[in-house]
Amino acid sequence: MAETIAAIATPVGGAIGIVRLSGPEAVAVGEAVFVPVGNKSLSQTAPRRAVLGRIVESAGGATIDEAVATVYRAPSSYTGEDCVEFSCHGSPFVLSRTLELLLQAGARMAQPGEFTQRAFLNGRIDLSQAEAVADLIASRTAGAHRMAISQLRGGMAHRLGALRDKLLEITALLELELDFAEEDVAFADRTALLRLAQQTHDEVDALAATHRVGNAMKHGVAVAIVGAANAGKSTLLNRLLGDDRAIVSPVAGTTRDTLEDTFTLGGTLFRLIDTAGIRNGATDPVEQMGIERTWQAVDRAAIVLLLTDGSRAPHPDDETLRQALAARIGNRPLIAVQTKADLVAQAPHSPASSTTAPDAPLVISARTGQGIAALEARMVEAAAMPQLHEEDVVVANARHLEALRLASANLARVVAGLRSTLPSDLVAEDLRAALRHLGAITGGEITTSETLQTIFSRFCIGK
Amino acid sequence: MAETIAAIATPVGGAIGIVRLSGPEAVAVGEAVFVPVGNKSLSQTAPRRAVLGRIVESAGGATIDEAVATVYRAPSSYTGEDCVEFSCHGSPFVLSRTLELLLQAGARMAQPGEFTQRAFLNGRIDLSQAEAVADLIASRTAGAHRMAISQLRGGMAHRLGALRDKLLEITALLELELDFAEEDVAFADRTALLRLAQQTHDEVDALAATHRVGNAMKHGVAVAIVGAANAGKSTLLNRLLGDDRAIVSPVAGTTRDTLEDTFTLGGTLFRLIDTAGIRNGATDPVEQMGIERTWQAVDRAAIVLLLTDGSRAPHPDDETLRQALAARIGNRPLIAVQTKADLVAQAPHSPASSTTAPDAPLVISARTGQGIAALEARMVEAAAMPQLHEEDVVVANARHLEALRLASANLARVVAGLRSTLPSDLVAEDLRAALRHLGAITGGEITTSETLQTIFSRFCIGK
Repeated sequence: MAETIAAIATPVGGAIGIVRLSGPEAVAVGEAVFVPVGNKSLSQTAPRRAVLGRIVESAGGATIDEAVATVYRAPSSYTGEDCVEFSCHGSPFVLSRTLELLLQAGARMAQPGEFTQRAFLNGRIDLSQAEAVADLIASRTAGAHRMAISQLRGGMAHRLGALRDKLLEITALLELELDFAEEDVAFADRTALLRLAQQTHDEVDALAATHRVGNAMKHGVAVAIVGAANAGKSTLLNRLLGDDRAIVSPVAGTTRDTLEDTFTLGGTLFRLIDTAGIRNGATDPVEQMGIERTWQAVDRAAIVLLLTDGSRAPHPDDETLRQALAARIGNRPLIAVQTKADLVAQAPHSPASSTTAPDAPLVISARTGQGIAALEARMVEAAAMPQLHEEDVVVANARHLEALRLASANLARVVAGLRSTLPSDLVAEDLRAALRHLGAITGGEITTSETLQTIFSRFCIGK
Repeated sequence: MAETIAAIATPVGGAIGIVRLSGPEAVAVGEAVFVPVGNKSLSQTAPRRAVLGRIVESAGGATIDEAVATVYRAPSSYTGEDCVEFSCHGSPFVLSRTLELLLQAGARMAQPGEFTQRAFLNGRIDLSQAEAVADLIASRTAGAHRMAISQLRGGMAHRLGALRDKLLEITALLELELDFAEEDVAFADRTALLRLAQQTHDEVDALAATHRVGNAMKHGVAVAIVGAANAGKSTLLNRLLGDDRAIVSPVAGTTRDTLEDTFTLGGTLFRLIDTAGIRNGATDPVEQMGIERTWQAVDRAAIVLLLTDGSRAPHPDDETLRQALAARIGNRPLIAVQTKADLVAQAPHSPASSTTAPDAPLVISARTGQGIAALEARMVEAAAMPQLHEEDVVVANARHLEALRLASANLARVVAGLRSTLPSDLVAEDLRAALRHLGAITGGEITTSETLQTIFSRFCIGK
């Protein structure tokens, strides 16, 4: 981190554009391109004070912009290094020229995420907070936003800290047993230890289980729309997407893996998994459904919508398909939908489609909008996304889930080891592995000195 | 301006997003949504100091973002009013929610340009500077940028000020003549006055004449590509645009009237005026060219490219068309281009196409790139855009041109009036009108007190 990095931190083309610098030479590099109004140079101005001035080609050279500069001094800055932020007019020319001048003055172009990476490396934030910055910037729904802000504010680190404290307590007691093994002193009550280990194991598993909600909030609740090619699948999709046009519209600079297929309903983000259409009129709909892709979509979906064309007479295949699907998805919600109500004179074909029957299909017309609100409400209900509060810790990150699963496996061995009166040193090894995995989430090192400190802080002085 | 206005000032989706407030209640409104770290409230923090804190739903409510706030106190702010700027994470959710909260707290959504409008109304900048802000933000080339920055830094106001001083001097002398008319004192040497008026008139016309360059730099040098439908017009266009892909790529938030048809070559912005293709093989090419749209394009163009298909044998129509065009465009540059050189075995069809002949067409292949660099150099040369310096004042604004033309017409009457010994009060009326028109450019009022002050400052005390 001996290098000073520079980047344009806003999309260009707005009223204001920000160019930022971080590194040991940030102020010197900034000073080379910025002439403050008044007689103080940039290095002489007070930290965190917004100073008006001009960005110039060179000392005495042409003006690129009238801008405001703010200096942050290490370690009281976002990155923990000296930083300079220039607030310029949002012109593409001004911003790119300013960046060029900073590079000429000795900065190098920042890598993606490098400012936040430096904030982590300089100990300003932990790894889970660094990850939350990216999640926060990408957040489009209140739920995704709340998870990110909770993680950014250290919610994950706090929860992991509590788990780690318990593991350190177990470790400390076990290691004491080891150190004084020759003296044959019974330090640890293994039943109490077992209870503590079991409890911690459960908590790690519970935290890992929040990933279902976290992933759905971040990437959308997966929905498969299954039905014959002419059942009205794409018309319904367009209707659902159309109601959300403002929210799904592309935003410059955001990464959106599945742009075309996500939409929000009632604050819940949904993600459509495309399914191949099912050919109509075949004799064996189950065989037909064997299309690999459709099954895969159904398997990955949290909710399945089964569409049938309400404008044609019911077909025995419909029911066969429904039963095959129901068997496949187990207890995940299956919502039956009868489409094209606008093509049906008054009553739909099937008497079962009366909305009063509990399992009756929802009768909709994507064209007229009939029944769409009811379908959307049913989808939101089926998604069953909890209302998150700021203090809720939810795992939204695959790396965190993997680390929690590894820690859980270690803890399972710890529990088994304690039950089977395995030697303490072998149990302690699994405990340390669990600690390492949990520590990897926030990026901290579980040092031996930390373990030692925990041990001796629990002893009285002089022993 | 009793209302406090709020707006998102950056495109969303970057690392950083700015939300800004301006107005009498800016600090109070900002305080309602922002909790600074530490024990000072936003209203207690020093102006221009970047303060870390949290944007919150309400006092004690959920956190929307960790952000940095900077308070600017009237009149030392961009708008001349109290202002608050929040530097947030660039999340669409964070920025829109923050804006919503500010609106709930009593701000109203700012109109486009309203911050700059307030800066003008509060006397922080003149009207031409306010216009320059918009030009600066939209600037894509070094030339357009330099014009905008010169105007922003008061270059136009300075030049107009010099012109106005001369007109005020003439007015003062004429009005003195009026005031003391009964005393029959000859105050003004009408020959000297006439010389001064003539000189000022010439300067106003010279300034108005810079609009050719200013308009071309801002909107692009207009180029019409004329030729038969199969002469390779669109292939050449794609080639020219392709070389400039980085610069013409769309930028969120910028207004681009003719996005698809502008490109830069050697720092000069060109704007393509589309022309209807000319049908081939007709007996009367002049009649054919009568297509209204093609003539209009040619009339509006600063440069005309005449394309002929070099892969086919020359046709008498080619020369007829060339002559018709040449007659139409007068002394504007006509560049003859022979296309599809790659389809010709070695030598092109026409011996006249040898590049050594002075009027010879440029032989190009848009497909292989042959001759493209030479064509581009010829276009840049024909555009003859001057290298602007920071102190150069160029009229890039149609409003300014109109005002200068009106002032010029008034001054022409002043000159004629002085020549014909028109009564001073009638001449003075035209002078005042010229002053008003020039004053309209910077938005200042030409008050009578200003005129009086000029008069008496030129008298000695006690007379």
